[in-house]
Amino acid sequence: MATMDAAAMSRRNDTSRPGEFELIARYFAPLAGEGAFNLLDDAALVSVTPGKSLAMTQDAIMAGVHFFPDDPPHTIAMKALRVNLSDLASKGATPKAFSLALGLHPDWTEAWVAEFAKGLADDCDAYGLSLSGGDTFLAPGGPVISITAWGEIDAANYKSRLGARPGDRLFVTGTIGNAALGLMIRRNDQRLVNLDGAAILYSLYLAPRPPVSFAPIIASHASASMDISDGFIGDLEKMARASDVDFEVSALKVPLSPQVRDAVGKHPELIHAALTGGDDYQCLFTVPPQRMDAFMADIASQSVQVTEVGIARPGDGKVGVAELSGNSIGSGKTSYSHF
Amino acid sequence: MATMDAAAMSRRNDTSRPGEFELIARYFAPLAGEGAFNLLDDAALVSVTPGKSLAMTQDAIMAGVHFFPDDPPHTIAMKALRVNLSDLASKGATPKAFSLALGLHPDWTEAWVAEFAKGLADDCDAYGLSLSGGDTFLAPGGPVISITAWGEIDAANYKSRLGARPGDRLFVTGTIGNAALGLMIRRNDQRLVNLDGAAILYSLYLAPRPPVSFAPIIASHASASMDISDGFIGDLEKMARASDVDFEVSALKVPLSPQVRDAVGKHPELIHAALTGGDDYQCLFTVPPQRMDAFMADIASQSVQVTEVGIARPGDGKVGVAELSGNSIGSGKTSYSHF
Repeated sequence: MATMDAAAMSRRNDTSRPGEFELIARYFAPLAGEGAFNLLDDAALVSVTPGKSLAMTQDAIMAGVHFFPDDPPHTIAMKALRVNLSDLASKGATPKAFSLALGLHPDWTEAWVAEFAKGLADDCDAYGLSLSGGDTFLAPGGPVISITAWGEIDAANYKSRLGARPGDRLFVTGTIGNAALGLMIRRNDQRLVNLDGAAILYSLYLAPRPPVSFAPIIASHASASMDISDGFIGDLEKMARASDVDFEVSALKVPLSPQVRDAVGKHPELIHAALTGGDDYQCLFTVPPQRMDAFMADIASQSVQVTEVGIARPGDGKVGVAELSGNSIGSGKTSYSHF
Repeated sequence: MATMDAAAMSRRNDTSRPGEFELIARYFAPLAGEGAFNLLDDAALVSVTPGKSLAMTQDAIMAGVHFFPDDPPHTIAMKALRVNLSDLASKGATPKAFSLALGLHPDWTEAWVAEFAKGLADDCDAYGLSLSGGDTFLAPGGPVISITAWGEIDAANYKSRLGARPGDRLFVTGTIGNAALGLMIRRNDQRLVNLDGAAILYSLYLAPRPPVSFAPIIASHASASMDISDGFIGDLEKMARASDVDFEVSALKVPLSPQVRDAVGKHPELIHAALTGGDDYQCLFTVPPQRMDAFMADIASQSVQVTEVGIARPGDGKVGVAELSGNSIGSGKTSYSHF
């Protein structure tokens, strides 16, 4: 509902914190867009351009599971939103608006909410989004944030993870493993805490940077696409199973940031964490051979890093990874590949 | 995302529970509808009939806040879904589909999930809904359930809570106060536990019964509409403020179930709980005088109970309630009326 209706909020007799309506009016109503009734109504009226469909996704993040309770509220908001934006980008959809269910810890402070809302506001500006509505409530064990985001798309251009065919080339956006190593830094891994790029890796754990601007290229050229949220290898296996193909991947081709490359250079075993850890929020997609020329022409004029990492083969859902040593390693049984 | 992507689930090494994919395939994929890719994809493709818009709402419920952790999973699911259906009904929209973010307590069992999914399945059948996707995750302090639901609507017929005008007549669907007294029964209120209708009131606390079939009549005739979730008086004040009118209400006209009437007969003070307690999930709406004939004709042929309870007057957001004793009582400062 567009009213962020937080009865439980106002039932607490805490005069040092704003009530639900003040909270919404002060921090969230400024983010409201068309059809959101300034967050005063029970729902939102979502208009859709004639001939278009919506790509819609809902992803939640929870304190102690997806982020640390003392992470900066600003980046918690960004992570909560961006884990949805990566889903939309991978479908070929440009995000338009979102709704927010915000479960606040019983000891929430106005400062926390202000910083959280600032994070959302910054991303609304950066990505051209508006808030359509939602809900606030008290969440013991929270904060917990559930966002539903959507964007318009031509139905024929929606790209699921089911469409890869043998011979299709496999690509990934951005670089892989930054957040996995960032989380290890947060956990004080002694191999990493003194790395030159530790702060950069940690910042990418706090707030991913999904390739939102890349959506039109996926819409135009991909045969299958998904975001990488649970680890590169594991998610590639999901695409292999969903599309009923095998993938051959060269680990040497998987794009790594200078920071991850540095870490792996010093501690080679970290490549496993980079390729199987989660929170990349990049796009993994396939391009049919006959689309390659047009695809290559299109990516030449945009800024998202794109790397070819493998190829689809006839099969039944397995992933073979040629490791750094050059050995091919089969997988397919577990949620990620064992090296 | 249509894949209910529960990385956290599979990271627990508990072989007695199904992994995320088994969980989704077994219990949630059977609820998947058009555009949901059998819950195998990151998002859903939502088609919209040309010329139509969507009414969209997102409401969450949390253990220990909106329900008791040991409530039946079947009714927890129904409550989680129906608190959204009442929002849509009040907007004049018939629900079509929903997505689900399901935060499971770390000690979740397969039996709990099976019962929860059964509740959703029963409501999908009852209301003609399908599941488009969502997310599962571990939620310390949970379960927490965030549902986003939508239905198609003619944009011109979307009814916000902002449109009431002086002279409009005020109506409510169903009966008021059942769930408030049901919650008091759950809390072992000695005035109520031995009431003949205690089980009925408690069941209405566990799973509300929003007037989903009434949506077309609201779409056709209402000038303003909202659902009653935080209590009849408090929500009426919200409508008064949003529409910038005053309301005059007769407490004697507010429809009560036989069970609440019985309870109030024995303990007259309970009328306050009935009129200010929450969880009614009925519709509160206004009808302009010139629509009254057509409105009365339309409600004659449908089954939802409708009661006229007051009238809008020129004003600035106050609610005056003629109490059972006949005295008029002003309000407007707090989130509910003090009697």
